[in-house]
Amino acid sequence: MTTRLLIIGGSDAGISAGLRAREWDPRCEVTIVMADRFPNYSICGLPFYLSGEVPDWHWLAHRTAEDIAREGIHLLLDATAQAIDPASHLVTILDEAGKARQLPYDRLVIATGAVPVRPRIPGIDLSGVYLLRSMQDSFAVHEYLDTHAPASAVIVGGGYIGMEMADAFVRLGLAVTVVERGAWVLKTVDESLGKQVLAELWHHGVEVATGVAVERIAQAGPQLRVMGSEGFSVTADLVLVAVSVRPQTELAEAAGIATGERQAIRVTRTMETNVSDIYAAGDCVETWHRLLKAPTYLPLGTTAHKQGRVAGENAVGGHREFAGTLGTQVVKVFELVVARTGLRDAEAVKAGFEPLTVESTSWDHKIYYPDAHELHMRVTGDRKTGRLLGAQMVGHYQSEVAKRIDVFATALFHGMCVDDLNELDLSYTPPVSSPWDPVQTSAQAWVEQCQNGE
Amino acid sequence: MTTRLLIIGGSDAGISAGLRAREWDPRCEVTIVMADRFPNYSICGLPFYLSGEVPDWHWLAHRTAEDIAREGIHLLLDATAQAIDPASHLVTILDEAGKARQLPYDRLVIATGAVPVRPRIPGIDLSGVYLLRSMQDSFAVHEYLDTHAPASAVIVGGGYIGMEMADAFVRLGLAVTVVERGAWVLKTVDESLGKQVLAELWHHGVEVATGVAVERIAQAGPQLRVMGSEGFSVTADLVLVAVSVRPQTELAEAAGIATGERQAIRVTRTMETNVSDIYAAGDCVETWHRLLKAPTYLPLGTTAHKQGRVAGENAVGGHREFAGTLGTQVVKVFELVVARTGLRDAEAVKAGFEPLTVESTSWDHKIYYPDAHELHMRVTGDRKTGRLLGAQMVGHYQSEVAKRIDVFATALFHGMCVDDLNELDLSYTPPVSSPWDPVQTSAQAWVEQCQNGE
Repeated sequence: MTTRLLIIGGSDAGISAGLRAREWDPRCEVTIVMADRFPNYSICGLPFYLSGEVPDWHWLAHRTAEDIAREGIHLLLDATAQAIDPASHLVTILDEAGKARQLPYDRLVIATGAVPVRPRIPGIDLSGVYLLRSMQDSFAVHEYLDTHAPASAVIVGGGYIGMEMADAFVRLGLAVTVVERGAWVLKTVDESLGKQVLAELWHHGVEVATGVAVERIAQAGPQLRVMGSEGFSVTADLVLVAVSVRPQTELAEAAGIATGERQAIRVTRTMETNVSDIYAAGDCVETWHRLLKAPTYLPLGTTAHKQGRVAGENAVGGHREFAGTLGTQVVKVFELVVARTGLRDAEAVKAGFEPLTVESTSWDHKIYYPDAHELHMRVTGDRKTGRLLGAQMVGHYQSEVAKRIDVFATALFHGMCVDDLNELDLSYTPPVSSPWDPVQTSAQAWVEQCQNGE
Repeated sequence: MTTRLLIIGGSDAGISAGLRAREWDPRCEVTIVMADRFPNYSICGLPFYLSGEVPDWHWLAHRTAEDIAREGIHLLLDATAQAIDPASHLVTILDEAGKARQLPYDRLVIATGAVPVRPRIPGIDLSGVYLLRSMQDSFAVHEYLDTHAPASAVIVGGGYIGMEMADAFVRLGLAVTVVERGAWVLKTVDESLGKQVLAELWHHGVEVATGVAVERIAQAGPQLRVMGSEGFSVTADLVLVAVSVRPQTELAEAAGIATGERQAIRVTRTMETNVSDIYAAGDCVETWHRLLKAPTYLPLGTTAHKQGRVAGENAVGGHREFAGTLGTQVVKVFELVVARTGLRDAEAVKAGFEPLTVESTSWDHKIYYPDAHELHMRVTGDRKTGRLLGAQMVGHYQSEVAKRIDVFATALFHGMCVDDLNELDLSYTPPVSSPWDPVQTSAQAWVEQCQNGE
């Protein structure tokens, strides 16, 4: 029997689901309905397109439409799903021409992703104020840069996109101010590491205002004035708002599909929703956390790929479980790379652990070999059991920060104790490490402090 | 009760043992007897000292003698152990002044390391022929470079030291020929990866002769002529011989201590020898292999540190087991980094596995972001069980090759299946990786080929 698999959404989760389904069962018929013309585009790459490091936006495609078609997947571009009818297994769409059609399915995968949160700030709809999530968003910013040659920008939000866009705008010669509501930028890491990022921003001439809630954006002649708490006020030619995202679930909810954490679609670890034959994956769903042993909302491209793969396989007869997220993340900010995996103190406490976090510093390789850089590391473990709970790291972009965090992530996946990291047989030659890798010296620092009862 | 811990050998294993013993039991008395004046020197750094990248040899010390003394360790420099008397718990040494003395011990750690194999080649004792293992060796080469300003060198042996010294000599402007007995250089990786290294050597003007056994070295006027099989003959100003090392165990054997693999000292996983109160660690011992579940001889600095730590802790009352080696290794050769962990086909077959090795290539990060480089990867897994057995990787030195191999090493440590690597939550941002890290795409390539029964 041929399974008709319908997928709503053509970004990471949707395309992964389709590819995996075709790989698993080459007889299945896969159709992907997507709202724009950019299947499988790397939205993580948008800041690098805007910075000019990626000269042509077409390069951002993980795969071309032709690559996808060659895998036997039918793509419906510029088509929006309007309604799901689970009882009759039908999805109503408006096609490219704006015509309503009904598509039947045996199995459905919802991969509608997330949308940026549009804060209710007076003035947010003014010309020159942008959000950044979709290809269309980036075209709009790109056109503004081209046609208006702005000299200055305010970025609202000190998260990943805020940091990457600060880097991009500086590269383009703009004067940049970042406004962040929290006490430090990059709140995905602890304050002491966030301060390293702050120093890097300053070093590149970026102004940073922390602890400031933006209250209003107003026209100021040809410019825009951004005003906030603490009397904050700055004018610039361009305002980019990147505060957070929320799952796009209206379509699912209207069809009776239950939501959970942060109103994301509730799914099992096999990526099934509460409605028969309907799966969901990616930034629109809640995500099983391997350490918390509970669902959370953590929209990440890596997770979307994994969940899409599980959903696609199961939708055509497989039996795979999503192994869970560890919240592993990394971002490059100018010369720095900032990465983390697992839990931080506050998250660990909520999950019933007794966390201890110890910060340490090591050279990325033997100091005698040229170009050694310091790595700043924070290791979190459970005082009671000694179990590793998480790690954070900031270092130079040539210091293998990302893959060092991945060693921690692999250790976390297996529930290792901090002390046991010393047993790992990690690679060493003076230009790339030390006989005890920094991963291990940071573990030794944790063990020592834990034993001293500090 | 105060434990008197005596350690023979002041390199990685000996110093680690001493430091750990003092950490574990601050009351213990630790004395280290060492044959030269260079405690805890990084012999892995010698090629970088000779290349000029490390301008001062003092920088090669992991720690200074003062650092070690500050930890409460008594160092006897230029002192050679002559005999061990296990019955009376005494070691006879010749001290700095050449005077014989007897040192009592409660526990003894033998960490005498390895010595380079001196092949029985006529002419190997000629002036201008060097081996490279100790600080003294490197001073001799350094002095020759300084005083003779050689224009050319022949390196006998295409292993790690051979590769690093080829790099070093090219950096110094010498014309370099590498002679290797085997079919390819860097026989720690498979031939197809070895060929990438060969291309890198050629690219930097190094001549390479493989499949050539050196038979004779002869004076040729002011130069040396190296002659070998296949009619090989080349003249140069300097000859460096770096073929392999052997464990230095004469002292131990004379005391009745048993040896095993490759005549290395036989030890338990708690690093105990067959003689009471005598432990051994580092390049002089056989090493437990975590995958082979058997002893092997794999002299590596990382292992020496770990074994020394275990020996030191247990010698003063601890109960720790050495977790085993995976044979994780890495070397930088010009712009390339070459790394491996675990088993290759032939080793896996010997251990009763049915190995399949699959080669694949991925970009180190998203191709759209500048400076992407290709990673060449070989993954070995067991056809029957799907279990990961090993991985090899060659790539640019800024492509996080070493720490990617460490992700494999961490997975191997936990006995993961190849397919399960896809479940790891690894970090991603376009400048450092892809949503599926190359570690994972190489696993996917393995699974696909395994399923196709190739």
